[in-house]
Amino acid sequence: MDFVRKDILGVEELTGAEIELILDTADSMKEISHRDIKKVPTLRGKTIVYFFHEPSTRTIASFEIAAKRLSADTVSISASTSSIVKGETLIDTSKNLEAMRPDVIVIRHQASGAPHMIAKRVRASVINAGDGMHAHPTQALLDMMTVREKKGTLSGLRIAIVGDIAHSRVARSNIIGFTKMGSSVVVAGPPTMIPTGIESMGAKVVYSIEDAARDADVIMMLRIQKERLGDFLFPSDREYANFFGLTHEAVSKARKDALIMHPGPINRGVEIPPEIADGPQSVILDQVENGVAVRMALLYLLIGGSRHASDN
Amino acid sequence: MDFVRKDILGVEELTGAEIELILDTADSMKEISHRDIKKVPTLRGKTIVYFFHEPSTRTIASFEIAAKRLSADTVSISASTSSIVKGETLIDTSKNLEAMRPDVIVIRHQASGAPHMIAKRVRASVINAGDGMHAHPTQALLDMMTVREKKGTLSGLRIAIVGDIAHSRVARSNIIGFTKMGSSVVVAGPPTMIPTGIESMGAKVVYSIEDAARDADVIMMLRIQKERLGDFLFPSDREYANFFGLTHEAVSKARKDALIMHPGPINRGVEIPPEIADGPQSVILDQVENGVAVRMALLYLLIGGSRHASDN
Amino acid sequence: MDFVRKDILGVEELTGAEIELILDTADSMKEISHRDIKKVPTLRGKTIVYFFHEPSTRTIASFEIAAKRLSADTVSISASTSSIVKGETLIDTSKNLEAMRPDVIVIRHQASGAPHMIAKRVRASVINAGDGMHAHPTQALLDMMTVREKKGTLSGLRIAIVGDIAHSRVARSNIIGFTKMGSSVVVAGPPTMIPTGIESMGAKVVYSIEDAARDADVIMMLRIQKERLGDFLFPSDREYANFFGLTHEAVSKARKDALIMHPGPINRGVEIPPEIADGPQSVILDQVENGVAVRMALLYLLIGGSRHASDN
Repeated sequence: MDFVRKDILGVEELTGAEIELILDTADSMKEISHRDIKKVPTLRGKTIVYFFHEPSTRTIASFEIAAKRLSADTVSISASTSSIVKGETLIDTSKNLEAMRPDVIVIRHQASGAPHMIAKRVRASVINAGDGMHAHPTQALLDMMTVREKKGTLSGLRIAIVGDIAHSRVARSNIIGFTKMGSSVVVAGPPTMIPTGIESMGAKVVYSIEDAARDADVIMMLRIQKERLGDFLFPSDREYANFFGLTHEAVSKARKDALIMHPGPINRGVEIPPEIADGPQSVILDQVENGVAVRMALLYLLIGGSRHASDN
Repeated sequence: MDFVRKDILGVEELTGAEIELILDTADSMKEISHRDIKKVPTLRGKTIVYFFHEPSTRTIASFEIAAKRLSADTVSISASTSSIVKGETLIDTSKNLEAMRPDVIVIRHQASGAPHMIAKRVRASVINAGDGMHAHPTQALLDMMTVREKKGTLSGLRIAIVGDIAHSRVARSNIIGFTKMGSSVVVAGPPTMIPTGIESMGAKVVYSIEDAARDADVIMMLRIQKERLGDFLFPSDREYANFFGLTHEAVSKARKDALIMHPGPINRGVEIPPEIADGPQSVILDQVENGVAVRMALLYLLIGGSRHASDN
Repeated sequence: MDFVRKDILGVEELTGAEIELILDTADSMKEISHRDIKKVPTLRGKTIVYFFHEPSTRTIASFEIAAKRLSADTVSISASTSSIVKGETLIDTSKNLEAMRPDVIVIRHQASGAPHMIAKRVRASVINAGDGMHAHPTQALLDMMTVREKKGTLSGLRIAIVGDIAHSRVARSNIIGFTKMGSSVVVAGPPTMIPTGIESMGAKVVYSIEDAARDADVIMMLRIQKERLGDFLFPSDREYANFFGLTHEAVSKARKDALIMHPGPINRGVEIPPEIADGPQSVILDQVENGVAVRMALLYLLIGGSRHASDN
């Protein structure tokens, strides 16, 4: 199967077969990071631009390591140094980047839909590295890779996602992705953090962490944004931990071999206690490692093949 | 012809023959960015340091892409992270950079003459990427490349430059460069933004955009610095747009095939309306693309030849 | 002799033979920076992560140039962009970096002992690029390299270190290093800037710069942190310069061929006058150049050999 897509904007646009191809490719990319010489010449002479409007450690580091292990050249443009501060529009900036003939633009932006708007206007491939509360497809893909690696399949699993579902692009992309691959997804969180209409995306809603965890193959805890705590959405982090922090009791409701996941960075003692984050069921660091592999796979599939050789 | 210059500090020091050599070299460099593998080993093992004291997206990205497509190694030192904040003098910082044996130092600085001061004290080649209101030679070279590419020559053309001439290093470098290559330059802007003595640089001054545009082969709009608007230099951006924003009427005064240029980032609706910026006569994105080619050419001419092989 | 150490955390843990091996290796690395093509493929496919919690120009630039001249791939994570701002613990951030399979983590942190804590928890090699007031081993090694290069030996020399000894990790690492290699170290500074118990590290304490300089082979001036001046530790920079700034008189007390050193960035006219900083005895810029060589040597010794080929 050939991968003919120009951009990676969201999990919703990918077919199940495309997701399988991405994960298979990521599995073989992972091996490169275990070599003594962690580098292949596949993307030599390709230019990747990071265009990040929100601070990010791990996502940009993960892309950067992925790009360099494939021998691509990279340039980073952050919001603080960019012409955005001079009032230039997003589209103008994109057209200007495009004029320098990059092969891929990786964009993170606080506005939902920004990567889609850019993708329509540039020849370069666009990867959405997180747009507002909308989508974070590379996170969902690395999460699916991690579960498939540990469970052998994504079909017929029960995935519990717990936390601030309403404001999480990670939750949204994972609900769509896991559902598409044949898992069932149940979400739990404080009522103020459950968006109306989430069932239409295929997720079942429950209101306690124990109900979510029951018989789960995967318990995925979301990061609580401390700035969302307070009077409005939830009283305090202590209160949050009491009701929606992961507990041994909740874990005991899940399947014995359930995986504990978290997109990071974790708030130890708030949404997850240290001994579970560091315990034998936790695959949190596998998620980080697989993030590099998934991003290598996406870069390779988008620009490593023969499509662009003739086309670009 | 050999290029024997150590530094690129301003257009004024370049001969017409040197400018032609730079533009010819840039024309051939441009082709590299159109290849599938956009990289040649020409500057492998060369070290380029960016030393930027003013924020910049496009200039640093343009240099970075140029450097990497020639396989050079790069290190960026920005003012916020540099020892400047610890009170070290510019010369000390330069001598320290020099001790790490870079081949080129690319500097942008708010003080006019800073690159010249450094160039005298280091063995490395210095490229002025903009100093105060003084000079921006790489911008003038990419502008000349763009005009020559479209018009076939720089000789006998009429170039109109419109905007805040007094505070623009882009205007200053372009007046010198185009005049040197045989074009005639006319400038227009609010009286408060026309420097006294500009005629001595070879430019004719007019006070309306229509007069500037009349019979022009090129209309180059300058970016209006919003911080210069207000009581002192000009009342408001609306007022500015009314008097010195580009209009269809002004364009109609120019030659039919006149090029519309802007160094970016553009203020849509202030100095240039969207439909002209995006219209068929606009070469604004060509300017951006040619910026990479010109910077590749300069890096190659300064350090890619045999001069440094024996000398450095 | 094989170098079998995993990390470089402090000079105290290195044997004299290990220090000699590092300096010998640095001597041969230095030659690479004098070549026309300043690059060898030694560390191709290795990943180096900079994890800096304090701003730094020269240290990170020096590591970056060192890494690139050895063909390593690098990723920089600064405190301002890192998850530290999101409240993640240092150990979590380290484990996350580790999951991306870097070969070396270079860390600078305001907390003494932070690099040691991380080194215990990751498989990657850790290099301490400065931790609080505790240690700065790469600075001490480049200082020893510079002295050995000029004097031919480190044995039997008299090293004077002058300034704010109490708050200087440079002083601390140099006292340990030079003493270990057979030099005698004398320190001088205002009484408020001499830590109690410094003699137990092998340094002799005197209270005037002339006494320190007497018969010295090396006078190493420390940078005065301007924020430490004021009522508490010392009245003013003028007062400081009067008592502990280097003078021609002090230099005249030292051996005729004494070296003048400073870790940079220098405060001209405070701890050192311009004519001495730029004079014939000054080796301040040699220190900077040797910094690149020492860092190349450390990267090579830690990950360039066969140890990691089988082990990692």
